[in-house]
Order: sequence, then C-alpha cells, then structure tokens
Amino acid sequence: MALRFKPVDNEFYVLFQTAAGHLVQGADILAEMLAEGADRSEIASRMRDAEHRADETTHEIASRVNNTFVTPFDREDIYALASGLDDVMDFMEEAVDLTVLYEVGTLPAEIAEQVEVLQRCAELTAETMPKLRSMKGLEEYWIEINRLENAGDQSFRRILALLFGGAYDALEVLKLKDIVEALESAVDAFEKVAHTVEQIHAKES
Amino acid sequence: MALRFKPVDNEFYVLFQTAAGHLVQGADILAEMLAEGADRSEIASRMRDAEHRADETTHEIASRVNNTFVTPFDREDIYALASGLDDVMDFMEEAVDLTVLYEVGTLPAEIAEQVEVLQRCAELTAETMPKLRSMKGLEEYWIEINRLENAGDQSFRRILALLFGGAYDALEVLKLKDIVEALESAVDAFEKVAHTVEQIHAKES
Amino acid sequence: MALRFKPVDNEFYVLFQTAAGHLVQGADILAEMLAEGADRSEIASRMRDAEHRADETTHEIASRVNNTFVTPFDREDIYALASGLDDVMDFMEEAVDLTVLYEVGTLPAEIAEQVEVLQRCAELTAETMPKLRSMKGLEEYWIEINRLENAGDQSFRRILALLFGGAYDALEVLKLKDIVEALESAVDAFEKVAHTVEQIHAKES
Repeated sequence: MALRFKPVDNEFYVLFQTAAGHLVQGADILAEMLAEGADRSEIASRMRDAEHRADETTHEIASRVNNTFVTPFDREDIYALASGLDDVMDFMEEAVDLTVLYEVGTLPAEIAEQVEVLQRCAELTAETMPKLRSMKGLEEYWIEINRLENAGDQSFRRILALLFGGAYDALEVLKLKDIVEALESAVDAFEKVAHTVEQIHAKES
Repeated sequence: MALRFKPVDNEFYVLFQTAAGHLVQGADILAEMLAEGADRSEIASRMRDAEHRADETTHEIASRVNNTFVTPFDREDIYALASGLDDVMDFMEEAVDLTVLYEVGTLPAEIAEQVEVLQRCAELTAETMPKLRSMKGLEEYWIEINRLENAGDQSFRRILALLFGGAYDALEVLKLKDIVEALESAVDAFEKVAHTVEQIHAKES
Repeated sequence: MALRFKPVDNEFYVLFQTAAGHLVQGADILAEMLAEGADRSEIASRMRDAEHRADETTHEIASRVNNTFVTPFDREDIYALASGLDDVMDFMEEAVDLTVLYEVGTLPAEIAEQVEVLQRCAELTAETMPKLRSMKGLEEYWIEINRLENAGDQSFRRILALLFGGAYDALEVLKLKDIVEALESAVDAFEKVAHTVEQIHAKES
C-alpha cells in the first residue's frame, strides 16, 4: 500500500494503536474490579481517567481527519474505526460506573467470563491495529473476534438465566442486568470494530 | 428500469425475496410458540436454524455487492435493505430465545397481537421484494407497514400497561418486558425496511 | 456564505427554527407534568400534538431536500439535523407517555433537574438554528450543550442511585427508570444535534 511511505499518514496507525492500548488498560481495570475486596471507587476513578484518555485520542483522530488531505483510507472508515473503539471504552466504563453507583454487593463469578473475553478482544485489537499499514494478517483478526463474541454471548445468556433463576431478588436482578448488558455491549462493540476492519480491508486491498 | 434486463442484477431481487421468505418462516415459528403446551426448546432450535439461514442470505447479498460492478440500486441502499431484513430476524429470534432462557410460564394472550402484526409485515414484505424490479406498487407497501407498525405499537403499550397493572410480580415483569420489547423492536425493524424501500423508490424512479 | 442570497434555500433555516420551536414547546409541556396535581392525560395529549407537529416539520424538510437542487449544506447533514431534532421530541414524548401508561404516582423531585436541562437545551437550539445562515456564533452553542449534557448526566446518575437506594420497590424502580432513561436519551439527542451542527460548521466555514 503506497501510503505507508507517506509519513503524515502513518500517524493514523499510531493513533489507532494508542486507542486500542487504552482498551487494553480499560479491560484490565475491569478485571481488577472483580477481585474480592477491590477498592471499587478507586478503580472507578482510574477507569474514568482511562476513558478520558480514550476520548482525547478519538478527538485527535477526528481533527486529524479534518486537517489531512490524503488519508490512508476513507475518512468515514477512519471515523467508524475511531468511534467504534471509543464505544468499547464507554461500555466498559459504564459497567464499572454502575457497579459503584448501584452499590452492588458481590458480582456473580460468571461475570469474569465476559471480562476475560473483553481482555482478549482488547489485546487482539491492539496487536492488529499496526497491521492496517500492510493490510496483511487481518482476516485472522475478525474471525477470532467473531469467535470471542460468540463465546461472550454464551456467557451473557448463562448469566441472564442465573439472574432470573430465583437466587436474586428483583432489585438485584435489575442492577446486575444493567452491568452484564453493558459488558455484552462492549463485546458487541469489539465485533463492530472487527467488521469495520473487514470493510476497510475489502476496499483497500 | 433498464437494469431488469441485466441477468446478473436480477439475482439481487431473488436474494431479497429469499431474505423476506426467512422472515415469513420466522414469524410463523414465533406464532407456534404461543400455542398451549408448545415444545418451546424445539421451537427455539428451529428459530435458530431460520436465523442462520437468514444470516447466510445476508452475507450472500453483501459479498455480491462487493463483487458486482453494476448494482440495481445504490450499494448502501442494498446494504441497508439486507441488514434491515436481518435485524427483523434477530429480534424475532431474541424473543423466542428469551422465552426459553427466562423459563417464562404462560405468555400474556395479548402478545399474539404483536406476533400477528409481525406475520402480516413478513408476508407483505415477501410479496413486495419482487416489485423492486419494476418499482411499481411499492407505495401501498410502506403505507400498510406504517399502519401495521402503529397497530403493533398500540398492542405493545397495552401489554406494558397490563404488565405494570399489578397482576405480575417484578421479576415476571422484567422477563416479559424484555420479550415484548424484542417483538416491538422487530416491528420497528420492519418499518425501517419499508422506509429503505421508500428511499430506494425516491432515488430510482 | 453565498447561498444565503438564494431565497429558495432560506426556507431550510426557517424549517429548522420551526423544528427547534416544537422542542421548546415539548420541553415546557414536560415541565408542566411535574407540577403537583397536574392533569397528566391532558398534558399527554398536548404532548402528542406537539410530537405530530414535529413529525410534519421533519417530513417537510425531508421532502424539500428531495426536491431542491441547491441545498444550503450537504443533504445528509440536513437529514441528520432534522432527524436529530425529531429524536429529541420522540424521547420527550416517550417520557410523558410512560408516566401516564405506568400510572406513576409522584415523580421524584430530582427529575425536575433533567427537565430544566432539556428546557435550556431546547431554547439554546432554537436561538442557534438561525445562526446556521451566517455560520457565526455556533461554537458557543455546542460548548454549552456539552456542558448541559454533562449536568444532565450527573442528575441522571443521582436519580438512578436514589431509585436503587432502597426507598422504592422493584416495580416502581422499573417504571421510573424507563422514564428517567427517556429523559436522559432526550438530552443525549440534543448533544447529537450539537455535534451535527459542529460538523456542518467544519465543512461549510
């Protein structure tokens, strides 16, 4: 892809890698929250910081698109990829935020499955962003993300069945359902990111 | 419309008709689930099969768009129509899936009204897809879908009022609300499909 | 901006101002609903009327875009702005509608904070639409809407914490959560409108 030789454009790849790096941090912070006796409000404030850094990277990408004549791929695809990565962070931050806001007691252990899927998706995405330069080795990415999304969906459904299984009262179900739905939305947002990468690949290669 | 004479393009009309046909099957499976003593897990597995066939048709349309130089109408409209039809199936499958997952007892009889609306929308859409070739007789379609969507919305609101009327405990309300909301989303997705057809008509004719 | 001298185009600015005017009325009707002993069903029917007028304006803008050769700015931006304004009204109407449908008793006083934010957003938006002609003084608009959205988000979170704080039973939480979420969605929809204005400004000026 000729553009890789234009220094100005390479900055986009760096910024996407930075954006994906924020998601790796976010998913790890999410995992900390599941630990016994975790200091949730401290974790929530670190999550907010990570989310703010992600916002800044998103805005940096957006303004760069507006001020660059030759972009490595279509402007709308750059926007879609940047906002897709941003959506993941928003949903992860929402899950942490609601856990504190609702003063949830112990989270069901099964939530760890969803968080592990998110950590794996984040790592994969961070490893993949640099490959947008060469457009090589991207197919494994979206195939694996789709596999992870299916696994995450199974966990999500198991947790819903558990919540409605009678062990929780209605208020607790309401609280926990919001949290697991936020995590499920974060996994779905990763799938959208992978789909955007697939579309960019289809156009550019 | 000159394109009707290009054999390669006609395949799109066939695929849209196939996609709408999956929705007719899906809506009928949904109706079976309302019957007294229905074997819900068996019905759910048939619904999953129908949903997988719908996915395959959607992917077939998408890959055909990528590999066709002259499409019968704008690529983004073909995508919008294909994914709109796919959304309907996803919401219908979700309704069946949640009914099994939540181990819901008897479903409120009023849900039959929503399902009848979905069956009618599916049949109408299947009858209408072939008319995209000639772009004739489409207006009746979106007018009738809008009418059906309003009827579906009234049923949805009646059911919500019923659920919160005191006859159900909070956990049951939570379960049933998710199901009727999935059905309402399926009806809304049909309205989006009709809107896409209206936009295609506005551009092409 | 040369287009301001083309009389035909000015109609779009008038229509956007009309659309924003409907939102000012809607937000005020919403505020009436919070008053002690308000006649909610009468208020709900006035809200429906306001929502219908908003729909008509939206359709008028859409059909004008289809029938105009030179539009003041990109067609998709005109659609985005029109449907963004329409979304705000739909969410405000939903909040009123659910309050009547669920036969909610007294609404938590904190809801007034969300409604005040919506009133302020509506007024600001109505004042701003005419400025789309000159593209002057728009930046203050999206900055202030973002500030209001953050304030609205804080109110929303305070109300959620209150709902889950133990003072309400699960059914009441379910009802009130739907209503405050509709109000929060209306505020978010205003933020999207401001974002669309920002994008139009970036392109046109």
